[in-house]
Amino acid sequence: MGLKIEEKEYLARIGRVRERLDERGADRLVLFSAKRIAWLCGYHLLATERPVALIVDEKRLVAFIPRLELEPAQACPLIDEVHHYFEYPGAEPPLRLLASLLKGAKRIVADSDGYPGIWGYEGPKLSELVRAEVKVEPKLIDDLWLVKSPAELELIRESAKWGALAHRKLQELIQVGLSELELGLRASYEASREMLAALGPEYGGHMRGGFPAEAGLISGERTALPHAMSLNRKIQPGDLLITGASADIWGYCSELERTLIVGEPTAEQRRFFEIMLEAQQLGLERSGPGVPLAEVDRAVHGFLVAQGREPYLRHHTGHHLGFAAHEPPFIDRNSEGEMRPGQVYSIEPGIYIPGHGGYRHSDTILITEEGVEVLTDYPRDLGSLTV
Amino acid sequence: MGLKIEEKEYLARIGRVRERLDERGADRLVLFSAKRIAWLCGYHLLATERPVALIVDEKRLVAFIPRLELEPAQACPLIDEVHHYFEYPGAEPPLRLLASLLKGAKRIVADSDGYPGIWGYEGPKLSELVRAEVKVEPKLIDDLWLVKSPAELELIRESAKWGALAHRKLQELIQVGLSELELGLRASYEASREMLAALGPEYGGHMRGGFPAEAGLISGERTALPHAMSLNRKIQPGDLLITGASADIWGYCSELERTLIVGEPTAEQRRFFEIMLEAQQLGLERSGPGVPLAEVDRAVHGFLVAQGREPYLRHHTGHHLGFAAHEPPFIDRNSEGEMRPGQVYSIEPGIYIPGHGGYRHSDTILITEEGVEVLTDYPRDLGSLTV
Repeated sequence: MGLKIEEKEYLARIGRVRERLDERGADRLVLFSAKRIAWLCGYHLLATERPVALIVDEKRLVAFIPRLELEPAQACPLIDEVHHYFEYPGAEPPLRLLASLLKGAKRIVADSDGYPGIWGYEGPKLSELVRAEVKVEPKLIDDLWLVKSPAELELIRESAKWGALAHRKLQELIQVGLSELELGLRASYEASREMLAALGPEYGGHMRGGFPAEAGLISGERTALPHAMSLNRKIQPGDLLITGASADIWGYCSELERTLIVGEPTAEQRRFFEIMLEAQQLGLERSGPGVPLAEVDRAVHGFLVAQGREPYLRHHTGHHLGFAAHEPPFIDRNSEGEMRPGQVYSIEPGIYIPGHGGYRHSDTILITEEGVEVLTDYPRDLGSLTV
Repeated sequence: MGLKIEEKEYLARIGRVRERLDERGADRLVLFSAKRIAWLCGYHLLATERPVALIVDEKRLVAFIPRLELEPAQACPLIDEVHHYFEYPGAEPPLRLLASLLKGAKRIVADSDGYPGIWGYEGPKLSELVRAEVKVEPKLIDDLWLVKSPAELELIRESAKWGALAHRKLQELIQVGLSELELGLRASYEASREMLAALGPEYGGHMRGGFPAEAGLISGERTALPHAMSLNRKIQPGDLLITGASADIWGYCSELERTLIVGEPTAEQRRFFEIMLEAQQLGLERSGPGVPLAEVDRAVHGFLVAQGREPYLRHHTGHHLGFAAHEPPFIDRNSEGEMRPGQVYSIEPGIYIPGHGGYRHSDTILITEEGVEVLTDYPRDLGSLTV
């Protein structure tokens, strides 16, 4: 099906990481984050209180894992050596084994100074266990997420496709009297079943629980809270709805959000909706290769302030995404840097009126050499979003 | 419905936290973890790249949040003061505002030295911004999770009830030719709908996506991998299955896992199943108030070694849980301390035979004054688990 990162791409990633180590005069990279390990070599593991790490040196990838990860680590073709301890807490801190694997290292770059405190894990810092200098620099990896490869873009496109399907199902199901959570469950269930049938037996192996494709919503006055989460509240006539949809394609994601209105919009709802839509349109039009991030947010923010909506602003215009749900950089007046071809951003200005509700669309866009491609194919106009 | 933590319980928690600060001669607690903030005062927020913190001093709870969290933070009756910045990254590091709220502090206990690097957040350490001494001690809170209150136990019981329902649905649905992921989706969807209908309009508001009640499984030889995740692989005759089920009740959880066999078990499957069951029974019987954790694991481990199964062992006997999916302490030969009334543990020894498959049941138990109460009400015998 082609919907996978190929081994040669992982090899290229590892090559770029080694270049970055060289630039820093460092001889080892130590990754403790399961997400970064998965990105670098395709080995997906469940992060728990049992510490794990991946060491990258100039020749090898070495995994440090608990016994229950031994076979999966050995099955990863890009990992050269696997060393394991039996269990956490164990008779001595497991990170001592990791330290022994770093003997001879002079300069280590790590994504954190020791394994993070997941599910109550406690242990020494890496810098306390090794003689080498330890520099904490998660961006050594994360900077490489900032421009997506063609294969990654294919996964993000696939995510956007199934996210849009989940959203269509959600919109079809919406009716007065059904609850937010119930609507989300039904739409996500139906979209996920279609997605599983289409993607075939190879799909999976990296998620635990949840929906492969997902859509959900919040309703009523709570739409004025940008990060409100769904309740079992029943949809009412006249409700504003703010939705969200995505799909997980081997860890890659997209973001699609829409404002919908239940029944004939009032004049006030119509006015707010049109202002939001105009702000989003401005964000989409201003985006493109070489455009400073701050400029896009300033244009959108300036427009909303000029419209007298400053009291209703709660956040900036958008964020990078693709391998995580949010990734730096942010489309923010205070961000440095510019948009580059191969980057993937959400464009999602919103206005939020206390006691009334909120208005926000979010689309996922790809910056191309020529301009902008919208990856989330879904209507944005009020007529299409009145249910 | 009564299924909530009452304000007086939050007040008691805050009181205990203040006592612990006093014991340490500290005048401020700073929590950066959304989970710990929710536990302390019932304010559930979505952790993003925008830093948040809760300050506890001898008189007040002070929230430090981005603009989009202002109204939810103000709506929490236990938070006395709310200070916000507009957005991350902003013109200057948001943590400077937090530092200004800590002026006059002498000794700070924090759950981390600054906000963690969620979704690419970067910023200064707390200790770089304040004159006070900063001691990192996440256990100041987490130690208080180790014995559950009656209200918490009610939520964990409720979780176990819906987890068992989801598991019953899963077991009913299992048939050759359906995939692991599809079975999980259907069972979780049906159980979640029943749970939502029963819990009423107040349920929700703290989850983003996923299922309120959930059951899933892995199948075939991959059951030999304790942390394998579900694939779109279709169930085959003769398959071993290892399941997992739980439900989220305002952040509280339980754990129910079973080994099932598709069709008439072979003599070999029967033998391994009975050994696993005997090991779990031993773990359940040895557990109780005042029993050292190491003793329970040693008994189970010793039994499996005596049965000649040492090569098939991958992990210890169990872990504490309830507000997180895993919490310390662990039922491990190297753990200190003993089981105490009000504690909640999983009992889940397993054996894993490469090329054949794995065997593990997990039950959630409550340690009582008298002994042990099994909270996950589900058959454990082979006859009931042959499908």
